[in-house]
Amino acid sequence: MAIRNLIDFGDVSREDWDALYANACKIMDHPEQYTDVCRGRISCNLFYEPSTRTNFSFQTAMLRLGGNVFGFADPSSSSVAKGESLKDTVKMVSGYADVIVIRHPREGAARAASLYSDVPVINAGDGSHMHPTQTTADLTTILRLHGTVDGLAVGLCGDLRNGRTVHSLIKALAKFDGVRFFLISPRELSLPDYMRRFMQKNNLPFVEVKGLEAVIPQLDVLYMTRIQQERFADPLEYERNKGIYILTTNIMRRARENLLVMHPLPRVDEIADDVDNDPRAVYFQQARFGMFARMALLMDLARQPRRPQHFLLSDEGPVCRNPNCITQTELYLPPLTKDSDSGPCCGYCDKEINGPDHASE
Amino acid sequence: MAIRNLIDFGDVSREDWDALYANACKIMDHPEQYTDVCRGRISCNLFYEPSTRTNFSFQTAMLRLGGNVFGFADPSSSSVAKGESLKDTVKMVSGYADVIVIRHPREGAARAASLYSDVPVINAGDGSHMHPTQTTADLTTILRLHGTVDGLAVGLCGDLRNGRTVHSLIKALAKFDGVRFFLISPRELSLPDYMRRFMQKNNLPFVEVKGLEAVIPQLDVLYMTRIQQERFADPLEYERNKGIYILTTNIMRRARENLLVMHPLPRVDEIADDVDNDPRAVYFQQARFGMFARMALLMDLARQPRRPQHFLLSDEGPVCRNPNCITQTELYLPPLTKDSDSGPCCGYCDKEINGPDHASE
Amino acid sequence: MAIRNLIDFGDVSREDWDALYANACKIMDHPEQYTDVCRGRISCNLFYEPSTRTNFSFQTAMLRLGGNVFGFADPSSSSVAKGESLKDTVKMVSGYADVIVIRHPREGAARAASLYSDVPVINAGDGSHMHPTQTTADLTTILRLHGTVDGLAVGLCGDLRNGRTVHSLIKALAKFDGVRFFLISPRELSLPDYMRRFMQKNNLPFVEVKGLEAVIPQLDVLYMTRIQQERFADPLEYERNKGIYILTTNIMRRARENLLVMHPLPRVDEIADDVDNDPRAVYFQQARFGMFARMALLMDLARQPRRPQHFLLSDEGPVCRNPNCITQTELYLPPLTKDSDSGPCCGYCDKEINGPDHASE
Repeated sequence: MAIRNLIDFGDVSREDWDALYANACKIMDHPEQYTDVCRGRISCNLFYEPSTRTNFSFQTAMLRLGGNVFGFADPSSSSVAKGESLKDTVKMVSGYADVIVIRHPREGAARAASLYSDVPVINAGDGSHMHPTQTTADLTTILRLHGTVDGLAVGLCGDLRNGRTVHSLIKALAKFDGVRFFLISPRELSLPDYMRRFMQKNNLPFVEVKGLEAVIPQLDVLYMTRIQQERFADPLEYERNKGIYILTTNIMRRARENLLVMHPLPRVDEIADDVDNDPRAVYFQQARFGMFARMALLMDLARQPRRPQHFLLSDEGPVCRNPNCITQTELYLPPLTKDSDSGPCCGYCDKEINGPDHASE
Repeated sequence: MAIRNLIDFGDVSREDWDALYANACKIMDHPEQYTDVCRGRISCNLFYEPSTRTNFSFQTAMLRLGGNVFGFADPSSSSVAKGESLKDTVKMVSGYADVIVIRHPREGAARAASLYSDVPVINAGDGSHMHPTQTTADLTTILRLHGTVDGLAVGLCGDLRNGRTVHSLIKALAKFDGVRFFLISPRELSLPDYMRRFMQKNNLPFVEVKGLEAVIPQLDVLYMTRIQQERFADPLEYERNKGIYILTTNIMRRARENLLVMHPLPRVDEIADDVDNDPRAVYFQQARFGMFARMALLMDLARQPRRPQHFLLSDEGPVCRNPNCITQTELYLPPLTKDSDSGPCCGYCDKEINGPDHASE
Repeated sequence: MAIRNLIDFGDVSREDWDALYANACKIMDHPEQYTDVCRGRISCNLFYEPSTRTNFSFQTAMLRLGGNVFGFADPSSSSVAKGESLKDTVKMVSGYADVIVIRHPREGAARAASLYSDVPVINAGDGSHMHPTQTTADLTTILRLHGTVDGLAVGLCGDLRNGRTVHSLIKALAKFDGVRFFLISPRELSLPDYMRRFMQKNNLPFVEVKGLEAVIPQLDVLYMTRIQQERFADPLEYERNKGIYILTTNIMRRARENLLVMHPLPRVDEIADDVDNDPRAVYFQQARFGMFARMALLMDLARQPRRPQHFLLSDEGPVCRNPNCITQTELYLPPLTKDSDSGPCCGYCDKEINGPDHASE
């Protein structure tokens, strides 16, 4: 691949992706040929918020390549995080490691880390901003099990408003041809306007429906998401929407024989337990495919040469107003801007610089 | 070995054990020949309750075989355990790992995990139910240091009522010939009836005594256990019994020259510190033998092929009434029954299905 | 090296150090030749108080040699530490590991551990007593970047009263020739009398000044330390002294071209962020050099043969009165004494046996 860091799946070109997926397939087909490719290489996994699932996937990916892992799984059990700047922690661990995997509650944290790291940085989730390796897991699952993404009918079901996983997947599927979307959600949880504009601009055909049962016969992929209580400011709204979608064996009877039922996990109750025995339920395989995709990624990034970063500070440029942006707590960070469809936005968290804040986006 | 999982030492035949012990000996004699046998293999250690000692032993066993380990040491520091079913966690990690080592506060948890795992499962302790690898450590120690188990005089001392370690060891020793038992405990902590019935049925000769000093000259093995406060409902009963046995250098003067003093550790005060310097005190060696026995076990189980589990749910069968059984919290588990000496019992926790609960057993 | 344990850098002869540094250089120059030297070896890292930075450095050092690591990062998440004696924990883990790295809040803990360990012990910090591998990191940095230590002008700046790092570095530099010292601190935080006596006895020339700016032009090395709130009994005294030294790019303009700015990290505000871009700011490199120095150390110690310790208890000898000494909590420890400049001192914590306690030293 031509990339140095994986911060945002949007930075990955179609060619980069094809190369990554080709490697993931080679690893799946001949794992025994890859047990030493990262021998002597070390990943530092900095999990500033706990995410055992993602952490396990990255850990095993590195171990299966013959590499090794250190880090913390939770900053509370770590003195590093105590009163030390992200910059200093990254500077220090990038002296010990060959690649850094970072999970952080603040948007843009991975981009910030990449400014100071002598080694490649992988974003394992930065607040509600990006989680690009979930998208690599999702694409790998569809490609591996359907053989192609082009022309598929993809249903996205649940909380489409807040789900970064879903937004990232839509953007990734836009790189392929002829994908048709079924957006299945109550009106309160429907896709945000900026994502709808993205789909229109990219000529991605979509229909919006509330009911799952009516559309399931038309789908090649059904991507279920959970409805997370913490996303709702209003508890009544949560009560109205929780449990609105529950995929059962009964509903599965209406689906195509080669449907893939996917889910980023963990599930709550949106997929009934007995669906697990249906061979079309591939969410646990999806987690395993995610490990192979991360192996392909680490195989490339963990073997790149060290590049000392001499980042020049600059006080110029507008300041980001997003209260969840990493720039709000790491005050030494230089302002960064980039252009987006709707004008200049923060180079860390992608929020419009002069626009409304995240909450009212 | 012919086994897929190690949930209960009772499932291990004498042939299985002989093969396991033979491998443990080969590893002890030529460790350098085994540093790569698990290269590329990964163990997932799921410790739902902390047990650093057991966890360390399993970790180092895997590392010394060239394998590697991930997992959690305590569910509180893990988001996996948060609101996710045991089934989903096991399904997920069995996609990443080659073997699962599980410690759980609920009886039958390891059996439950084995229903959903694509890879072998090892029980590292399920509540007060089973801890089979402690027994492999104990047997390995006796065999390695005495050369045989047959015909030995074995003293079991301390809390024989609640000690699962002791019960499991008695059952294991029943697979050998001519072992004689000295059960050393106050009446309140004497062996439970069902174990006494087991010994009678298997023609295991035993005498029950209260005093340690009188019988120590007759012993080849003295297995000390600690008297644990948390086992006593009545604090007065604990006060009466704590410190009732304290093995001192003075008492050791009466013992045979080739006595083995064993202890599952940690000790509290039942073995005086200065006994440590007596070459007959082998409890720290016993911990090391445990590591070698676990190496032999992992060498076999961590290299078995994956077997996707398609467990079919069934709502039939009686429900277990043991309040500590895993079925009480993981409600999706199908009822399992098996036959025991005293009638049908729960296939997870081994408690009688229609019988009294654990407390009054 | 001729050493079995590294408890105190004072035990390392000049010849030991030269061999250690030579190995560290070989590793830095040809890391690919060392990726397997500890293959099959395991380090047990017992961190009884959190110190992620030191732990990370030891972990990565071992991993880069092809070895592996287990242990705990914080005793609160470990059941080992719960009510078990240090002796029993060390005895147990020394059966699993090839080397033990221990960090403990009590002075003398590493020495105590070494009495019971069958494998070498490395002190990773015992209270405010010793932290010898920080000194190996510091010396390696100076030697590697200046080519020599002899004849250098070394400025030590900040809290010289409480900083064990600084005291240990002074003692280490005494093994070289012609080093001149600039002790830069407010009077309240100046070097303690016993260190001043040490310098006089060893003919180490020093001047004491309060201002940094005036002396910086004369320095080859500037060793900054942080002023730690927890060292001050009187909050007012802390308020008076915090922020007293802040190294800025402005001050750096007065310094030599080949000055090395060092810091044991983490920093608080004593070095301004923008100094990081100055090539003379080597504190992050220093952390990386520390990893290489620890590799050289582990390469030697982790490959030594096991030596069963049969420590004979003795109740003779005077008892240490230092309230922070490990002997105050691990009551089975035999009294140990050794001679120092100022009379007999405790063999664990080095405090004078009949003298004043630590606080009034």
